Amino acid sequence: MNFLEERILKDGVIKEGNVLKVDSFLNHQMDVALLEEIGKEFHRRFANLKITKVLTIEASGIAIAYAVARCFGVPMLFAKKAKSINLDGDMYTAEVESFTHRNKNQIIVSKKFLSSDDRILIVDDFLANGCALQGLISITEAAGAEVAGIGIAIEKGFQYGGRSIRNLGYRVESLAIVDSMDAATKTIVFRSQAE
Amino acid sequence: MNFLEERILKDGVIKEGNVLKVDSFLNHQMDVALLEEIGKEFHRRFANLKITKVLTIEASGIAIAYAVARCFGVPMLFAKKAKSINLDGDMYTAEVESFTHRNKNQIIVSKKFLSSDDRILIVDDFLANGCALQGLISITEAAGAEVAGIGIAIEKGFQYGGRSIRNLGYRVESLAIVDSMDAATKTIVFRSQAE
Repeated sequence: MNFLEERILKDGVIKEGNVLKVDSFLNHQMDVALLEEIGKEFHRRFANLKITKVLTIEASGIAIAYAVARCFGVPMLFAKKAKSINLDGDMYTAEVESFTHRNKNQIIVSKKFLSSDDRILIVDDFLANGCALQGLISITEAAGAEVAGIGIAIEKGFQYGGRSIRNLGYRVESLAIVDSMDAATKTIVFRSQAE
Repeated sequence: MNFLEERILKDGVIKEGNVLKVDSFLNHQMDVALLEEIGKEFHRRFANLKITKVLTIEASGIAIAYAVARCFGVPMLFAKKAKSINLDGDMYTAEVESFTHRNKNQIIVSKKFLSSDDRILIVDDFLANGCALQGLISITEAAGAEVAGIGIAIEKGFQYGGRSIRNLGYRVESLAIVDSMDAATKTIVFRSQAE
């Protein structure tokens, strides 16, 4: 069991409806030391891929992506939800449905910050149905950039997002893959992975 | 002139309507080295205040707040906009009007993560009319915690937010205070501050 799986067992809270709350350390209150460790681990796994930029989506992916970008020494870029009056017209867009919030968002990245020379590492806190990830992949490829890898903190392995994105040929590394969880018995089963 | 003022002059873009775009390094694409420097500088300025937690608001404050929290070795906490189905009912709320997006948001922080023992450093990328900051102050004080300090990357000194919050007795440190800017002549005037 790795450090993140251990932390989920210790501080994660399982709720009805396959909700895993990790808000005490990962996506509301952030444990800086844990995020540093996540950054180092993704750097170890993707070190040889000549990553030029780390891409995520607001909001809860930002701190993790920053910790990862810091280890690579490259800029971090985050896709924004909805249109801001401060963004130029010249941007890549994708439509993303949120499982958590049950709504649809347009996500946008300024064209200035992605080019065909970029080798992108996409990072996010959760992977469930994969909608956010598909949006980020679509934006990266619209820029002619390469999705060099995808790093996820927690994947819900019982939803189809991870499988469908791996089937498309992308390299997805999830630090913890939850194969099942049960709110009644407070148990959680992680997929066993090669370290 | 400090490192952030220099960077604004180099890479900031002044637009009509008193809009200062810093999206190439601060709030869309993030320059990791710059954020590290911001973290260190706020740590230097607030080092003796026994900070227990860094609080910000999603989305563009998160990476800066993370860099600051890392220097203090304390958790980072971000207020969320709008209600998520993953958040418990037990939370502090405040209403915040956004200058950039021209809308109102409910912002929320789970009660679990703020207590009367906390000494909070509030961090954000911009201070203009101060609405976001007032929301964060109100949430902190609703928890009985103390606002030990407020660290802002860029303050629009020609708007009233900074003055009104300082008048209330809070210690606000802004790394760059823009006293005026002119889109036509591409000039920007910073308030001179003691280093």
